[in-house]
Amino acid sequence: MSAEAVLEKITALLGPHGCIVEAAARAPYEHGPRYGAGAALCVARPADIAEAAELMRLCAADRISIIPQGANTGLVGASSPDTSGRQLVLSMERIKGVIDIDPVDGVIQAWAGTRLSDLNQALEPHGLCFPIDLGADPSVGGMLAANTGGARLIRYGDVRHNTLGLQALLMQPPGELLELGNRLRKNNTGPDWKQLFIGTAGSYGIVTQAVLRAHPLPRQRATALVVPSSPEAALRLLQDAEREFADFLSAFEGMSQNALEAVLRHLPQAIAPFSPMPPYALLIELSSSASANEQFNLEQLFMSWLERHFDDAIVDAVVDKPDTLWRLRHAISDSVKQEGKVVAFDISVPRSRMPAFREEALALIARDFAGADVYDFGHWGDGGVHFNIAIAPAQQEHFPPPRIDALRTAIYDMVVHGYQGSFSAEHGIGPFNQHYYDRYQGQAQRQLAARMQPVFDPHYLLGNTRFG
Amino acid sequence: MSAEAVLEKITALLGPHGCIVEAAARAPYEHGPRYGAGAALCVARPADIAEAAELMRLCAADRISIIPQGANTGLVGASSPDTSGRQLVLSMERIKGVIDIDPVDGVIQAWAGTRLSDLNQALEPHGLCFPIDLGADPSVGGMLAANTGGARLIRYGDVRHNTLGLQALLMQPPGELLELGNRLRKNNTGPDWKQLFIGTAGSYGIVTQAVLRAHPLPRQRATALVVPSSPEAALRLLQDAEREFADFLSAFEGMSQNALEAVLRHLPQAIAPFSPMPPYALLIELSSSASANEQFNLEQLFMSWLERHFDDAIVDAVVDKPDTLWRLRHAISDSVKQEGKVVAFDISVPRSRMPAFREEALALIARDFAGADVYDFGHWGDGGVHFNIAIAPAQQEHFPPPRIDALRTAIYDMVVHGYQGSFSAEHGIGPFNQHYYDRYQGQAQRQLAARMQPVFDPHYLLGNTRFG
Repeated sequence: MSAEAVLEKITALLGPHGCIVEAAARAPYEHGPRYGAGAALCVARPADIAEAAELMRLCAADRISIIPQGANTGLVGASSPDTSGRQLVLSMERIKGVIDIDPVDGVIQAWAGTRLSDLNQALEPHGLCFPIDLGADPSVGGMLAANTGGARLIRYGDVRHNTLGLQALLMQPPGELLELGNRLRKNNTGPDWKQLFIGTAGSYGIVTQAVLRAHPLPRQRATALVVPSSPEAALRLLQDAEREFADFLSAFEGMSQNALEAVLRHLPQAIAPFSPMPPYALLIELSSSASANEQFNLEQLFMSWLERHFDDAIVDAVVDKPDTLWRLRHAISDSVKQEGKVVAFDISVPRSRMPAFREEALALIARDFAGADVYDFGHWGDGGVHFNIAIAPAQQEHFPPPRIDALRTAIYDMVVHGYQGSFSAEHGIGPFNQHYYDRYQGQAQRQLAARMQPVFDPHYLLGNTRFG
Repeated sequence: MSAEAVLEKITALLGPHGCIVEAAARAPYEHGPRYGAGAALCVARPADIAEAAELMRLCAADRISIIPQGANTGLVGASSPDTSGRQLVLSMERIKGVIDIDPVDGVIQAWAGTRLSDLNQALEPHGLCFPIDLGADPSVGGMLAANTGGARLIRYGDVRHNTLGLQALLMQPPGELLELGNRLRKNNTGPDWKQLFIGTAGSYGIVTQAVLRAHPLPRQRATALVVPSSPEAALRLLQDAEREFADFLSAFEGMSQNALEAVLRHLPQAIAPFSPMPPYALLIELSSSASANEQFNLEQLFMSWLERHFDDAIVDAVVDKPDTLWRLRHAISDSVKQEGKVVAFDISVPRSRMPAFREEALALIARDFAGADVYDFGHWGDGGVHFNIAIAPAQQEHFPPPRIDALRTAIYDMVVHGYQGSFSAEHGIGPFNQHYYDRYQGQAQRQLAARMQPVFDPHYLLGNTRFG
């Protein structure tokens, strides 16, 4: 069937408002925040799940490839079409809105197109929040497809940990609606199929709505920037903080001297927390939904803890408002961009291996990739490392694409083979990481995925990631 | 092939110590704690995963059905053979032991046959525990197969929430070892296949080892038995406790007057906490791994909270040692058994519906099943209800099996259709719940399971549960 005939059918189904064909209007849906542009056959924007189901049946019949898209904030290209002009972008942006909030159940139910910020706005009057903490404002469907993590994973877990139920449209049989779950905390009635739709970028079906765990909003918070006496001391502090503060430890982040200095150079009005700047600093945060009172005050508890560790594990510390300290932390990514061409890493290692990995990786860069500057920061609480590198303008001629590929592979090889770590801690696979998935993922897992393919999507029509 | 020839091959593979054929020696493996006896072809006890893999290849070739078994403490018959004498029990009891503990990573890695008590014994010197709290002492493999919950789910989640990685032997290809995961907290590299082996009773493969989250051991605890002014007040207390005590709320259990009175009748030296006994009581527990000190003392916090609610939601309260109060709670099941023939329920409803469900279910029993006495207790924190019933000896002639089936179905229908609840909150499916699975599980889910079957086990050789 010709592209024109297909577009005519889709427009007839969704109406002109539901099917964007014109190139300029398509453009925002064709590229994500971190990679080049593709070209879509069209952008389909169904108004409800009945239209989405019908669209899937149409695509199945005509073998049209579908790229599901939420807020298009992902970092691995999983929601972007390729350059063929033959893939259909299925935007869920019109299937949005909060369906229900139950403060006793501690749940929020919402359509896939609902933004994270909208969830939190709806939850706030109930004293609740959805505690996924990150810079972007993804949609519910996108968060499930990516299994979003974020900076407070140590306290709340990732999206998988906070999903009680979901509803998905299948490609096999085309357009079938699978209702998975509910708002129960305890339910052992067979395989937990919903897990297959989380962190798989829409490859097994398109999430249309979710029932998510809501958590009490923090009502007090204490934050400090801490200079550990050594990398090993940082691990001791992490362990001790987990024991002493149990689950009101809500962040344990690390920032290298380079990363902090980049922030001071580029963030307007940033004030140096230390002078001279230490080689490494930790941002430690406690938070609790209990109000502060004379019996329970996180700031006081935190101050006592810091004092107790000043002799051994802590060299220096700055206690300041959460917003002030987080502003430094959140400014790292953008500040590093201003230092040169960024080679970003989203990797993780077991927490116990953080110091050893960092030492070996820095040595590798210094030895084999001199001229590349490392501005690493990371989540010590969950082993996540953003081992970001910038190539300064004067150095860029020495770093042609093959050398950057070699650098990338050298670091990934070290993470995966040397540390049993992950080459994609929180961003997922997508076209951006497909090559590394094929390189690092075990053969047995890839074969299992290949055997599963016919069950969910025999003609590889869903998404642009190939798990098997 | 004759049974004799098969037994000869298995004995040759595993040695006489590894294959139990004699009837009396087989018996303990042929029945579980709550149901009648089956008869196994033999009990195979491989010494390691190489033997287990070879055994699976042998069974695949000869089409011998395998019933995986851990500590055989499950409550739905999922680890028991049927009466045909043709199923092989694959006991994992010899594949046991702790492989590694890393206190910084907060993980314990252990073979499938390791008991929960052994995990905790190995973790204790590190100040850690595996916080699944229940009466039995299951194995690691059994806990994963059942996705064990327990009384502290509100604080720690179920086994699924605490499993970082696992290793499983597949039936397709027979004996293939699938390595799923590691000790990473953050890893988004494709489908999370390990979820398919959790809560599925070995139907998709046999778990051979797991990497589990270890948590800091509590170092202080505060417990009270609280009489709420009404069922709705109990919900208000739950919500407020979650906000005020964040995640050091470690249990919020409910016990009916009947259940408490049964305990007082049958538990030696039990002392009545209230007089007269109230219609319902809550066991609320706070715990923290932080030591008690003048800045942070759970008992003091708890006392203040109880006082604050005395005017509205709380009618009476007894603060006592955790062991004393938990002893009452844990004695309910056994005490009810002494009241008559037990019809046990393991159901759950959304937390917000606990009072409405209880009222309607009690009314149904009173109206249609007079003579059946309800001794309900439950986990208000997670919506789990053990709506247990005892038929006193004098009444048993009025409750022949068909009437008990009718009672069971009436309650399940109410839970599933009236409250979007679960007919098996924590025990799983197994032969005991197969009939209800077929009745209540959505058709789309059962069809998906049927399509998945060839991927994992085309000849239905694994386990005795049929998901599709």
